[in-house]
Amino acid sequence: MRHFAARPIAPADLRALLEAAALAPSVGNAQPWRFVRLRTPALREALAAHVDAENARAAANYAEQGRRDAYRALKLHGLREAPEVLAIFCDERPAAGHGLGIATMPEMLRYSCVTAIHTLWLAARARGIGLGWVSILDPGAVTTLLDVPLDWTLIALLCLGYPEAPSEIPELERRGWQARELLADRLFER
Amino acid sequence: MRHFAARPIAPADLRALLEAAALAPSVGNAQPWRFVRLRTPALREALAAHVDAENARAAANYAEQGRRDAYRALKLHGLREAPEVLAIFCDERPAAGHGLGIATMPEMLRYSCVTAIHTLWLAARARGIGLGWVSILDPGAVTTLLDVPLDWTLIALLCLGYPEAPSEIPELERRGWQARELLADRLFER
Repeated sequence: MRHFAARPIAPADLRALLEAAALAPSVGNAQPWRFVRLRTPALREALAAHVDAENARAAANYAEQGRRDAYRALKLHGLREAPEVLAIFCDERPAAGHGLGIATMPEMLRYSCVTAIHTLWLAARARGIGLGWVSILDPGAVTTLLDVPLDWTLIALLCLGYPEAPSEIPELERRGWQARELLADRLFER
Repeated sequence: MRHFAARPIAPADLRALLEAAALAPSVGNAQPWRFVRLRTPALREALAAHVDAENARAAANYAEQGRRDAYRALKLHGLREAPEVLAIFCDERPAAGHGLGIATMPEMLRYSCVTAIHTLWLAARARGIGLGWVSILDPGAVTTLLDVPLDWTLIALLCLGYPEAPSEIPELERRGWQARELLADRLFER
């Protein structure tokens, strides 16, 4: 994730991203995504403090010092400074869709939310807006903090804004955390 | 899902779709996607028979006759006639990524595979290729049928081909199974 510039996201642009996301394909057309826009500064700070704590714990789990230092040097969330923060939840019991395609794979509802998030992500990048997906958190704790229905599962916490220094190369590649692998090594036949 | 035309997908086009998919963002850049291209007719038939059986079971679960008939009228897989069938798995213990971002949300690996699938899907649509994501199946049974490592989770079984009758309106909407909902009903603030 890049550091964010101070420039805000115009309401019409944010709206366009959400409208694009809501056009994503979903299992049974169940549209199980629920978008929560963070507007309360105290809630943002509570989320940031939670992620900071989980982050410290995750760093401590790297036994090898070089890797631990590399981890600590990464920018892993922008919850305090991002112009926009969105939490994306999956409604595990949506009224829409009539249960199509989820009898044996209920996880399809969560996967459908990911297609919406990725649609939003691509729409953001097309507008020069950067997005960081924060997953160093306890989903249940975030659900409680945001006081959403108990049937909702947290899929993603997203920080959005214009990057200070745009780059075509993802940060984890640029900083040597993890290089791209070859497709040939990931492709099989049966 | 539409019915497929007989036209095959050119190898260079299939390759381009897979190359695009492999550029998707992933947690820790772990790239946990594993693509399996189905080439064995007997395996395709075994998959189709499995999905037919799960499909019959799912149809029987609709107590209301109108809904049951509507379900039965849907085209829910093209495993026998699709020019290409891909199974996408998630490696739950990838060597890449060094565990970043999955300590508290291991499901991020599976979500990363969904971003790859959706990237492939959009790349396919941009070329006029249709894609059907089949989820009326037992993921464990498919994993066994395809004889992949036990650490792999089935995320999707995909049928790809050129649609006989292209349409901008998804089949489930066109056939009245489930209409689009309003974004306003899915957007919340905190």
